[in-house]
Amino acid sequence: MSVGVAVLGSTGSIGRSTLQVLARQRERFRVVAITGHSNSDLLAEQAKEWKPALVGLVNGGTRDSGLGIRKGPDCLVEAATHPDVRIVVNGIVGAAGLEATLAALRAGKRVALANKETLVMAGELVAQAAREGGGEIVPVDSEHSAVLQCVAGRRPTELARLILTASGGPFRTWGAERVSRATVAEALKHPTWTMGKKITVDSATLVNKALEVIEAHYLFDVAYGDIEVVIHPQSVIHGFAEFVDGSVLAQVGFPTMELPILYALTYPDRVPDQGVRRFDPVAAGTLTFEALQPERFPAYVVGREAARLGGTAPARFNAANEVAVQLFLEEKIPFGRIAEVIERVLGLGAGGSGRGTSLEEVLAADAEARRLAQEAACP
Amino acid sequence: MSVGVAVLGSTGSIGRSTLQVLARQRERFRVVAITGHSNSDLLAEQAKEWKPALVGLVNGGTRDSGLGIRKGPDCLVEAATHPDVRIVVNGIVGAAGLEATLAALRAGKRVALANKETLVMAGELVAQAAREGGGEIVPVDSEHSAVLQCVAGRRPTELARLILTASGGPFRTWGAERVSRATVAEALKHPTWTMGKKITVDSATLVNKALEVIEAHYLFDVAYGDIEVVIHPQSVIHGFAEFVDGSVLAQVGFPTMELPILYALTYPDRVPDQGVRRFDPVAAGTLTFEALQPERFPAYVVGREAARLGGTAPARFNAANEVAVQLFLEEKIPFGRIAEVIERVLGLGAGGSGRGTSLEEVLAADAEARRLAQEAACP
Repeated sequence: MSVGVAVLGSTGSIGRSTLQVLARQRERFRVVAITGHSNSDLLAEQAKEWKPALVGLVNGGTRDSGLGIRKGPDCLVEAATHPDVRIVVNGIVGAAGLEATLAALRAGKRVALANKETLVMAGELVAQAAREGGGEIVPVDSEHSAVLQCVAGRRPTELARLILTASGGPFRTWGAERVSRATVAEALKHPTWTMGKKITVDSATLVNKALEVIEAHYLFDVAYGDIEVVIHPQSVIHGFAEFVDGSVLAQVGFPTMELPILYALTYPDRVPDQGVRRFDPVAAGTLTFEALQPERFPAYVVGREAARLGGTAPARFNAANEVAVQLFLEEKIPFGRIAEVIERVLGLGAGGSGRGTSLEEVLAADAEARRLAQEAACP
Repeated sequence: MSVGVAVLGSTGSIGRSTLQVLARQRERFRVVAITGHSNSDLLAEQAKEWKPALVGLVNGGTRDSGLGIRKGPDCLVEAATHPDVRIVVNGIVGAAGLEATLAALRAGKRVALANKETLVMAGELVAQAAREGGGEIVPVDSEHSAVLQCVAGRRPTELARLILTASGGPFRTWGAERVSRATVAEALKHPTWTMGKKITVDSATLVNKALEVIEAHYLFDVAYGDIEVVIHPQSVIHGFAEFVDGSVLAQVGFPTMELPILYALTYPDRVPDQGVRRFDPVAAGTLTFEALQPERFPAYVVGREAARLGGTAPARFNAANEVAVQLFLEEKIPFGRIAEVIERVLGLGAGGSGRGTSLEEVLAADAEARRLAQEAACP
């Protein structure tokens, strides 16, 4: 009997990769539900190929495809809690993915989580939902999948330290002045990964890595002081896990999201799959590592500070960043302004803004940070 | 209650490292037996510090230390099967370690095996002894420990391919003509590892890597066609394990034998230990990988061919190498002659010399190969 899968964000980068993986694993999995944001043409195509029980379009277009597409944001929770679904692949970009994650966990599903904002905004709430409903989170991020593969089957107490790798993004070797004036096209030229626009900009600011540090903290229950980041421009080693005896494991390979997706579907087992380029250390070439220079990545520094503060600070950091990145992508603010906006929003009361233990509080912090970010960006 | 350990070869490189590890883990382990080859002074010192129930000197000197040291080769099996011993660390160099390994496995002990010749000579016999007696082999070799750490807890069927790393030894960048005339001092200058003399020479010829390929074949039940070797001069990544889904794990760290030793003692668990230098990717610097050039390492090529032939060919390969290395260390033959001697011995009937399914047959093949190697080296 095949395992039912819901793919939230099926028309996005993670969603499309997920369907590619599932196309090779049709004996093990079937697609029960797909949802897209606004690309109704691709969604209709996917619906035609996979014939899922539920097809949802969040930002409903007006054209009716004749395929019974459910319209509006409610389709996310509906897909995530569908009775025939056992695994929810959450590939939604940004804060919009939180509610569906919580609903799926409460319904006892596995959530294959590419939507790191979920854990950043509401790590405690997510953990609580999983406990209550019997659901579980398995990361789809390449760095966290790497760590999970290294620690799978071991006792959590044996894990001592994490080292996440960061490519350093397209501006790793640029001067600070030039970076501050970088264009959208330049920010979207990621050196090693092909991803969605928002995460690609987050990789250029290294906000993505700050989000990943917070995500790792919740996923693996590791203190922030024991989560390090190292610049590794080749993106071949995706993450290191150090154990209490000093030994270090790493997951390596040519960059592809299909492997973390497949592993999140089959974890803790592995199944034969030929879709991934075979690793060859000689072809991988020279691997280098550089210390992260905080002065070059001010938004990352704010993110780590938000993590340290806890409460709703990470949610506010995430919200401010989402607004700033959107404005940058719309060419309304320069690249250098992204960090300034986030800094300004966090500076306005990140310390005293609640513990983040209820969804209402988190969403209120998120909304306030968005408003402040808009103001800070376009006064 | 602490776990009783026997250290065979306690005065050698592996043995001394083992006692260093045990000195940090006195709450978990106690030393029940130690044996040395001929360094009676150091053995007496160790006996004084650890007060083991049994102290053995294989190559008995004449001086009596007054510590009740057991003399002669029988002490090895006696130590390996001592009732208070649960783990036997076998750090004996060469074929001499085989009998003790078999005895320990038949007595249901764990054998922490640094003596790779054991598996090379008699892989099938060793597996059989473990099955019969309920013992188990846990590798102490850094490469095999790396692989074991990557696959621990997973189903054997999930493992697809192994890539063992080799530093390439001191002659990696030398011309062939210069290598053939290399002195003992030059061969003993290993670029990354401090080890015993025999294994250091084996690292220069890459015979060590051929032995490790055979060892890996038996330890992890992987076909020879799925065991690759890559030159990695920095010795920071100790081994790669590729799974059926294409994912690759690796164990990384600054070179030290103490970690594989500790892991073999605590496997599958890990215990806190501060003795190992903490890994730092930035300090590790640049990691490079090169294809192994067979024409530069003729003895390695013969070893892979012996592996492919099976039967007693690996035992003969190992025996011929032991003789040749000893003669080289005694400055009786030049470095380049080591490979020639091995080639000649294997050429003299490696194909039709028995299946290696009895100890007698293995020991006879070993003895014959030694005789032939002596002849070939010093006609």
